[in-house]
Amino acid sequence: MNRIDEIYQRIAEADRPEVFITLRPQADVEADHRESVSAGGPLAGVVLAVKDNVDVAGLPTTAACPGYAYTPTTDAAAVRALRDAGAVVIGKTNLDQFATGLVGTRSPYGAVRDARRPDHVSGGSSSGSAVAVALGFADIAIGTDTAGSGRVPAGFQGVVGVKPTVGVVSTEGVLPACASYDAVTIFAGDLETANAAMTAMAQARGPRPFGSDLHLAAPEHPTLAIPAELPELDDAWRAAFAAAVARAEDAGWRVKPIDLSAFLAAARLLYEDALVAERYDAVGEFIDRADDAAGVDPVVAGIIGAAGEYTAAELLRARRKLADLRTEAMAEFAEADALMVPTAPCHPTIADVAADPIGVNARLGTYTNFCNLFDLCGLAVPAGTVREKDGDRAQFGITLLAPGHRDAVLVDLARRLAGAGDSLMTWPESIVGPESVAGRDVVDVAVFGAHMRGGVLAHELADRGARWAGPLETAASYRLVALDTTPPKPGLVRDPDGRSIEGERWIVSIAALGSFLADLPAPMMLGDVELSDGRWVVGFGCAADAAARGEPLERRRW
Amino acid sequence: MNRIDEIYQRIAEADRPEVFITLRPQADVEADHRESVSAGGPLAGVVLAVKDNVDVAGLPTTAACPGYAYTPTTDAAAVRALRDAGAVVIGKTNLDQFATGLVGTRSPYGAVRDARRPDHVSGGSSSGSAVAVALGFADIAIGTDTAGSGRVPAGFQGVVGVKPTVGVVSTEGVLPACASYDAVTIFAGDLETANAAMTAMAQARGPRPFGSDLHLAAPEHPTLAIPAELPELDDAWRAAFAAAVARAEDAGWRVKPIDLSAFLAAARLLYEDALVAERYDAVGEFIDRADDAAGVDPVVAGIIGAAGEYTAAELLRARRKLADLRTEAMAEFAEADALMVPTAPCHPTIADVAADPIGVNARLGTYTNFCNLFDLCGLAVPAGTVREKDGDRAQFGITLLAPGHRDAVLVDLARRLAGAGDSLMTWPESIVGPESVAGRDVVDVAVFGAHMRGGVLAHELADRGARWAGPLETAASYRLVALDTTPPKPGLVRDPDGRSIEGERWIVSIAALGSFLADLPAPMMLGDVELSDGRWVVGFGCAADAAARGEPLERRRW
Repeated sequence: MNRIDEIYQRIAEADRPEVFITLRPQADVEADHRESVSAGGPLAGVVLAVKDNVDVAGLPTTAACPGYAYTPTTDAAAVRALRDAGAVVIGKTNLDQFATGLVGTRSPYGAVRDARRPDHVSGGSSSGSAVAVALGFADIAIGTDTAGSGRVPAGFQGVVGVKPTVGVVSTEGVLPACASYDAVTIFAGDLETANAAMTAMAQARGPRPFGSDLHLAAPEHPTLAIPAELPELDDAWRAAFAAAVARAEDAGWRVKPIDLSAFLAAARLLYEDALVAERYDAVGEFIDRADDAAGVDPVVAGIIGAAGEYTAAELLRARRKLADLRTEAMAEFAEADALMVPTAPCHPTIADVAADPIGVNARLGTYTNFCNLFDLCGLAVPAGTVREKDGDRAQFGITLLAPGHRDAVLVDLARRLAGAGDSLMTWPESIVGPESVAGRDVVDVAVFGAHMRGGVLAHELADRGARWAGPLETAASYRLVALDTTPPKPGLVRDPDGRSIEGERWIVSIAALGSFLADLPAPMMLGDVELSDGRWVVGFGCAADAAARGEPLERRRW
Repeated sequence: MNRIDEIYQRIAEADRPEVFITLRPQADVEADHRESVSAGGPLAGVVLAVKDNVDVAGLPTTAACPGYAYTPTTDAAAVRALRDAGAVVIGKTNLDQFATGLVGTRSPYGAVRDARRPDHVSGGSSSGSAVAVALGFADIAIGTDTAGSGRVPAGFQGVVGVKPTVGVVSTEGVLPACASYDAVTIFAGDLETANAAMTAMAQARGPRPFGSDLHLAAPEHPTLAIPAELPELDDAWRAAFAAAVARAEDAGWRVKPIDLSAFLAAARLLYEDALVAERYDAVGEFIDRADDAAGVDPVVAGIIGAAGEYTAAELLRARRKLADLRTEAMAEFAEADALMVPTAPCHPTIADVAADPIGVNARLGTYTNFCNLFDLCGLAVPAGTVREKDGDRAQFGITLLAPGHRDAVLVDLARRLAGAGDSLMTWPESIVGPESVAGRDVVDVAVFGAHMRGGVLAHELADRGARWAGPLETAASYRLVALDTTPPKPGLVRDPDGRSIEGERWIVSIAALGSFLADLPAPMMLGDVELSDGRWVVGFGCAADAAARGEPLERRRW
C-alpha cells in the first residue's frame, strides 16, 4: 500500500468530514506524489494541506463561506514555494470563516473537532490544517495567523505551529483577515519538518532588508522572559507551564518574570477597538450584501459587520495607543531573548463555545492576540499534557515569542527545550546561500583563533546576531603566525607552501559585518579567504607588517 | 546699531503685523543674542523665527487659533537643537490655522501678504516663517510641512525651504497636522545657512537606522526626472521651468521626462479621501467643541470637521490605494536620482483665494502634496523670476525630490544647479562624526589607488551611496607596493621607515561597508589604518603574501 493510499484510508476511517472543505481525488494526488518523489527536492513526497483562505490553482477558495467561493487559476506564493520544493497538495482545509475566530467552530462546513477529544474544539481559525496534521492526513499544513490562528490550534492538536515575522512569507494569494497583521504559518508534527517548509517559503520570498538588529541565533546563555502573572490560565494547566519554566532553568537559562499588562492591553485592542476595522476592509462589503444562501456564520457576521462602524479617527487613535503599548512591551523585551507563554489558557468544549461564542474565543487569545500587533514572531510547540477535571488529558503547548526577524532565536530555543541541541541550519538563515550574491543580505565569514566559538572574542560576532555555522578548513595554502598583540592573536597568512587551517564559519548580516569591521582593531584585517572546497569567503587576515613580524605558530586547535 | 536693533527697526518699518503672532521684547532678544555670540556655536548669533505650531518654552503656542493657545514650559526638540547650536528665537510666526492650507490667508491673525507683492498670498501654511526670512526679520525660520507647507511659501518668497525625510528631525513639541506625514522644515536665505540649521536639528535627533539603500551623495553624472506634462502650471511660468531644465542639461545631467500621474493621484488622496482624517485626529475634537470666541477659521473648520466623517474602512482603503500609487511612482524613480518640479504652479492674489479658497489652495499643492505621502524628501530653491501678466515679476522656485534618506543627493544637486559645486559636507552626513562610535551608522573609510575619485573602482563606493569627503594622509609609517593584480593595484603596507601616503576619505553607511567588503576580491583587505592626525579609520590594506611579492611603488598621485 502506497503512502497516499494509506492516508486516504486513514481519512476514510477517521470519519472527520469537517476537516477538508475540498479533498482532491486520490488518483490525482497519487500521480503528483509519484512525480514529486521522482523529481526530488527538499520536500519531495511531503503531503501538504492548505487552509481554505489560501489559493491553490484549480481548487475553490471558500474561506469557509460557500457564497464567497471562487476558483483561482494560480497558486498563492506560499503554496507555489512548497510545491516547487516538492510538496503535494492533498486538499483545502476548514477554518473559522474568514479566519475570524480561535475556536474552529465558526464554519458552515461543520465545527472542527479536536483530534483526540471530539467533544472539544480544535482551536482555530486554522482548524482543519492543525487537525489534518495531528491525524496524519498531511505531513505539513499551511495556516494563517492574525491573532493566534496558527498557534492556538497547534497547541490543542499537539503539533508545531510557526508564526514567522510578518513579511517573511508572501501573503500574495491569501485572503486578508487584517492585512497589516496577517502571516502565513506552517503546522507540522515536528520542528525539523516545519523548518524545511519554512525554508522553502522564506527562500521563495527572497532576501529581506535585514537591519543591523537581525538575530540569526540564540545566545549561548539566553534570558527567557515569562509572565509574572498568568491571567485566564486554567488552574490545572499552571503546573504544566511551571514544568516548562523548570526545563528552561534546568538548561541553565536565566528566567525573568515580566509585566504582561501592555501585551494584554494590546490584545484587547484587536477586537474591542477600531483595529478590527481591517476585517471589514477585507470582506465587509461582501458580508453586507450577502443573503441567507451565502452561508455567512452569524457570529462572524456580527464581528465583521460591527467593524464597519468605526471612524477613521478611532482607527488612528487605536493605532497610536497600540504604538505606545508596543514601546512599553518592547522595553520588557530589552533584556530577554524570548518570551515564553502558554499557547492557550484552557481547552474548551464545543458546548462551552456554543454557550458563549465571543467570551470563550476572547479568552483563548489571551496569549496570542498581541503578537502580530507588536510585530513579533512566534513558535508554538507541544509541551506535554495536562490532566483535566474530566480525567482526560489535554495537550499543553507553549509559545516562544521574540521581536520581528528573530525567528532563528525561537527555533534554537525550541530545539534546546526539546533536548535536541542547536542545529547548524535554521530557516531564517537559509534564505540566502553563497550562490545568491546579488542583493544578498547575509554572508559567510571565516574566523580563526579567539573569534571561534568559546573564544574570548566570539561575543563580538554573537552580540551582532551572527550564527555559528560549523567548522571549516582553508585551502592548503595558508599558515598562522602569532601576532605581537596581547594576548598574541593568530594571523592567517597565505603561503603556497602552507597547509589547511581549521577555522569556523559564521553567518552574519551585511550590516553586522560592516559594524564588526568598523570596530576591528589593527593589525587584524578582513578580506577574501580561500576554503578547502575552493569557495572564497570573507575571512580574517592581518596587516602585512604584523604578519612579517609574527612568529610561526604550530598546528593546534584554537 | 546692533544686529537685533537693526532687525527690530526693519520690522517696525515694514508694517507687517501679521507676520508674527508673538514677537519677543527686543531687550530679551538682544540679551540672548549677546550671550549666544559670546558662547559661540555653529549657529552663534543666528536669529530664528518659529512657526506657531511648534513649542517655544514660555511663549504661547496658538497654531493660529486663539482659543487653542497654551504656553509650553519646554521647547520643541527642533527648537532646542537650534538654540543649543546658538540660534536666538525672535518670535512665533503666523500660519494657516492648524497648518491646514498652502495659501497663508487662513488665520484670524491676518492673511500673510507676499514679501514683495502685498496683494499676493505669501503661501502657507508656514506663511509667517517664510516672509520673516524674505524680509530679513530672521536668518532662519522653522516651518512644518505635510502637504507642501515648507515648500510653497519658500517658492513664493524666493528663499530656500528644506523638507527633510520624515523622521530625521524630531516632531516632539510640534502640533500634528497629519501625524504620519508631518516634517519640521527650515527656511533660510541660502542653502549653506539652511544646511547648518538642518545639521543641528538632525544631529540632535541622533543616529538613524540607515539601510543599505542610503545615499550620502549625488552621483557625478546624475539623472534628473522631470514631469512629462506640467498640469496646472501657469503659461507664463513654463519658460522658467524650461530654463531650469536647460541648466540641468547644461551641467551634463541626463534629463528624463516621467509620467507624473501616480504622483498627482496621490496628491488628490490627501484632501479628497480619508487620509485627511488624520487632521481630525489631531484637533477635530477641539474644533467640534469650539465656540465663536475660539477664532476657528471657517475654511479650516470645514475641512477638519468633514475629516471626522470618514470610516476606518475608508481610511484603510485610501492607504492601500496610496501604497499602490507609491509603488507605481517609485518605479518612475528607479532610473533617476531626483525629480525636479515647479514648487508651485502659479502665484495667486489674496483676492483669488478669497473667491475660491478650496480650489486655489488645491491647485497650489499640485507639485507638493504627494511628497510626504510617498516618504520623499524635498528641497525647494529659488530659480529666478517670471514676468506675470500684470507686469510684476513673481519669484519662481523649483523643488528637487528624492526617496527618503537621500536628502544629501538633493543638497548636492541644488548646489550644482546654483553653480556652487559639491561641498565636502552636507547635513544628512554630518549627523554622525568619528566621535560617536556607539550606535554609529556611517563610518569613514580610507581609500587609495583605483577607489579614489575618478578611479576605475570609485563606482564601487559611489554606487553604494558613499560620499567622497576629501583627501587624507596616512601617518608617516606606510609604503605602497604594486600588487600582482591586473592592472596592478597599490597595496598599503605599514612600515616604520615608510612615509605618509595620500588617499581619500569616503563616508559610507555600515551596511554599505559590509556589502563592499563582501564583494572585495583578494588580495585586497580592509582594516584599521592610522591617519596623519592620529585617528584610526577603516582603510585598505592587502594580504601579507601579496604585499611581500609586491614591487615598491614610487610616490605618485593615484
